[in-house]
Amino acid sequence: MNYSLEHLRDFTIQVFKKIGCSDKDAATAAAVLLSADLRGVDSHGVARLAGYVRLWEVQRVNATPGIKVIHETPSTAVVDGDRGLGLVVAPFAMQIAIEKAKKVGTGWVSVQNSNHYGIAAAHAMQALAHDMIGISMTNASPLVAPTFSTAKMLGTNPICVAAPAGRQPAFVADLATTTAANGKLEILQRKNQKAPPGWVQDAEGNPTTDADILKQGGALLPLGGDREHGSHKGYALGAVVDIFSAVLSGANYAPWVPPFPVYVPMPQKQPGKGIGHFFGAMRVDAFRTVDAYKRDMDDWIEGFRNAATIKGQDKVLIPGDPERETEIVRRQEGIPLLPAVVADLKALGDKLGVAF
Amino acid sequence: MNYSLEHLRDFTIQVFKKIGCSDKDAATAAAVLLSADLRGVDSHGVARLAGYVRLWEVQRVNATPGIKVIHETPSTAVVDGDRGLGLVVAPFAMQIAIEKAKKVGTGWVSVQNSNHYGIAAAHAMQALAHDMIGISMTNASPLVAPTFSTAKMLGTNPICVAAPAGRQPAFVADLATTTAANGKLEILQRKNQKAPPGWVQDAEGNPTTDADILKQGGALLPLGGDREHGSHKGYALGAVVDIFSAVLSGANYAPWVPPFPVYVPMPQKQPGKGIGHFFGAMRVDAFRTVDAYKRDMDDWIEGFRNAATIKGQDKVLIPGDPERETEIVRRQEGIPLLPAVVADLKALGDKLGVAF
Repeated sequence: MNYSLEHLRDFTIQVFKKIGCSDKDAATAAAVLLSADLRGVDSHGVARLAGYVRLWEVQRVNATPGIKVIHETPSTAVVDGDRGLGLVVAPFAMQIAIEKAKKVGTGWVSVQNSNHYGIAAAHAMQALAHDMIGISMTNASPLVAPTFSTAKMLGTNPICVAAPAGRQPAFVADLATTTAANGKLEILQRKNQKAPPGWVQDAEGNPTTDADILKQGGALLPLGGDREHGSHKGYALGAVVDIFSAVLSGANYAPWVPPFPVYVPMPQKQPGKGIGHFFGAMRVDAFRTVDAYKRDMDDWIEGFRNAATIKGQDKVLIPGDPERETEIVRRQEGIPLLPAVVADLKALGDKLGVAF
Repeated sequence: MNYSLEHLRDFTIQVFKKIGCSDKDAATAAAVLLSADLRGVDSHGVARLAGYVRLWEVQRVNATPGIKVIHETPSTAVVDGDRGLGLVVAPFAMQIAIEKAKKVGTGWVSVQNSNHYGIAAAHAMQALAHDMIGISMTNASPLVAPTFSTAKMLGTNPICVAAPAGRQPAFVADLATTTAANGKLEILQRKNQKAPPGWVQDAEGNPTTDADILKQGGALLPLGGDREHGSHKGYALGAVVDIFSAVLSGANYAPWVPPFPVYVPMPQKQPGKGIGHFFGAMRVDAFRTVDAYKRDMDDWIEGFRNAATIKGQDKVLIPGDPERETEIVRRQEGIPLLPAVVADLKALGDKLGVAF
């Protein structure tokens, strides 16, 4: 069944207010969460709302955080999220990156002591309205084995780069640094289907197509899948995200990142605080005129959109096209939710006294 | 046969001086070129020296460029390379990024009107001695088809991130955004061997293992290989490199990047000037104390180095380990050159009157 954006947003705001968020924070968090549902990233939207509440229940999320800058230069800052919802901490940090870019051309903010921040694109795209390029990355629950290893050392650590264009829609690349995001694996698990080769390995590091293998000591594989196909590159990219987000900020890194699901035990070692994010904003006119940039960016996009296709393929996609097209449809037709998600939201509403 | 670093460096300097480079520029260019041979990236070292000279012969390289900043803010600059060797333009631009980082925390430089710059790592690693994180990327000759396309729209567009550590060697990730770098394909061509599936496609976009397929309209594939294994992510990363390097600077982008081999015709359309690069430098202490960062970075590296390995694998590698280990050996034992490369260098020396 489909639900309107407004309905889901109002419910989400009420839930966040029930756990103690201010009106403003509840609205911010709901907007970030719903942007995932709108863009078709169903794994990161309201389907996770109960998960955020569970983190608050075990006192890992602070609903009234004193988010603050603890170190800065003209072009950089480190933000302490005070264990707030990443859905609130991240917009705060991205706004600082944008303000610094206004003053000195670019702004770069590393964040400690935060929690899961939703989809990376929601934050990077904040830069677009300012004619800036936005960058967003975060570390996450350890699920990914580096090349040659059996140990889960990294999260799916996404990178988003959003670049404005002129008459064309913006370029928005938002990618987990793994062959496939964990959400895609979860879909296969629910359908009881096999995973394609190259997505996961078993506890000994052997290739497998068992989509349930993570529950038996297996791991997701870095983008590339195996060494011959460049998995050391996906591993390196995930590592860069971890270093920028956590080693640079003083957050937890590598296998010591606090897991999102509350039933997964916290790592014994805590080298930093919470999870880490990294944001960037680059003013286009810090490099050349916005007009010249937009003319070339439109030409770039049109070049790719009109490139020759493989037989059977309609068109060459620009990063962000599928999500943008989904958003247009869902703003009109509503957001489809699986029955299990609806049941989960109803149960959450019942518990907190909010009607779904 | 092995040749000493000093021998190859002196020869390279003499060659660059013969085409008109200043003493300083010849030394800079030779250092960058030889850093590839030292680090084991044989495709990007002296094996390419004759190629650079051929670009000068057809007047695509200016041996006495007036490299200059044409636009700047406190944290950004655009550099016009005046058709100079990328081996000289890139160090100039990276130095500006470092100087800006000293003043405002970070520095970001986009470059137009340049040529091939050697290995990405040579430039990013300049930041390390300043306790900065270095970033380097460049666009390159179009060889790569985006997901769903038969057209060669992107170069192998590498990204390098170099991050300093404390007692551990620096983390240096330097990766082409394709499944395999073109140099690896060329090695298979010379040995008359097949390419692994997922490296290349034929002119119609079908999977193939023919390592010679690029000469028959085929293309390299983005990291991921195919859609099911995330090739849209490799495509997006290569696209980000192109946008940062060229759309932001006013260089040529997409299929209109001037090709490195002089026998490949120049594209009809030239939307910008020369090829483009992008550099970044981030002062570690613009985020937290160098001591705290290095303590955590060492801990990060040691965590990965000591992670459990798949049976049959010695150890988990840190990005940059293989190149660093090769450099230690080659500084002692010299740099091995294939007979074809030696013959090429001798012929080059004969032509220019420099003894090899």
